Amino acid sequence: MQQRSEETRGKILSSAQALFAQHGYDATGVAEICQAAGVSKGAFYHHFPSKQAVFLQLLENWLGTLEPLLSAFVKDSPDVSQSLMQMSTVMPHIFSSGKGQLAMFLEFWVQSSRDPEIWKQTIAPYHRFEALFAEIMRAGVAQGSLAEMDPDTAARALMALAIGLILQGLFDPQGANWNDTAQRGIQWLIQGMSRR
Amino acid sequence: MQQRSEETRGKILSSAQALFAQHGYDATGVAEICQAAGVSKGAFYHHFPSKQAVFLQLLENWLGTLEPLLSAFVKDSPDVSQSLMQMSTVMPHIFSSGKGQLAMFLEFWVQSSRDPEIWKQTIAPYHRFEALFAEIMRAGVAQGSLAEMDPDTAARALMALAIGLILQGLFDPQGANWNDTAQRGIQWLIQGMSRR
Repeated sequence: MQQRSEETRGKILSSAQALFAQHGYDATGVAEICQAAGVSKGAFYHHFPSKQAVFLQLLENWLGTLEPLLSAFVKDSPDVSQSLMQMSTVMPHIFSSGKGQLAMFLEFWVQSSRDPEIWKQTIAPYHRFEALFAEIMRAGVAQGSLAEMDPDTAARALMALAIGLILQGLFDPQGANWNDTAQRGIQWLIQGMSRR
Repeated sequence: MQQRSEETRGKILSSAQALFAQHGYDATGVAEICQAAGVSKGAFYHHFPSKQAVFLQLLENWLGTLEPLLSAFVKDSPDVSQSLMQMSTVMPHIFSSGKGQLAMFLEFWVQSSRDPEIWKQTIAPYHRFEALFAEIMRAGVAQGSLAEMDPDTAARALMALAIGLILQGLFDPQGANWNDTAQRGIQWLIQGMSRR
């Protein structure tokens, strides 16, 4: 039974993901998710209290694949500055894993900015990443590979660059080699932050 | 008559902007725009072929206020690197002028990524900004204040940072001093691009 229940949950998530990506979050209803997943509404609400909960789970799942990647090559790095410059090697993974999902996350994020309750839930993973990057920056300053600076501000600047690169790659995929742009952009920023 | 017509057009634009910002682009219909503006549907369609056309005009108007600002302090600058570092002084203007509109632009941009025809119209202003920044970078490389680099890649990196900063400021306005973050972030990036 446990296994069957996990399967149902998985089917709901993958069907919702496909529908959100294709038609958008707003245009997709619980009924359509149930139909595509081949589950009853009862089964749906057994697993998720709302469409929004499904979405937040998808967002968590995706972010959950990114966090270990980001932590891996900067954690305990003897040269944080060098490690951060190689952060761009994660970008191809973000682009490919987020394919079809990025537009959906963004759409939801935009909507959440109008609703204080949803906003609280979507801002939480953002703040988690912010804290992760700030910790990395703090380590870099402490070891001397980064210049003296406010680690929180540095973390936000790096995240801004990453967010902007992801957005540009999402909206203008053919417009440039985004992996290359990410690599150069992150190098420039970290170079500017590094101790001379 | 001409003046009256201009007034009507202006009323449609300002009503649409208020409704889009409050309820979102998708949730706002032409009927509601007409009601809020106090104009007939006939008058609306005399001025705009569609709701989308109203939106694109609003986007153009907003970008039209940014371009001269950006051009002003880098055009013919004797030190492009220094001028770019001061680019962040434009950020408060972007935040205040885009207040309530940014979410709407973003929502529309997300939707346009699903529709090739609309996409063509929304990507055009993006490419215009890209070209403007590339020209600035090219000038900086030529005068020697920026290191040898591909001006297009440099332009995209700077735009990515700006886009990410705007997004963060939009979604987490209380989370940081975004003007300060923008200033530091742009300084770091340009420092990394500058000739040592």
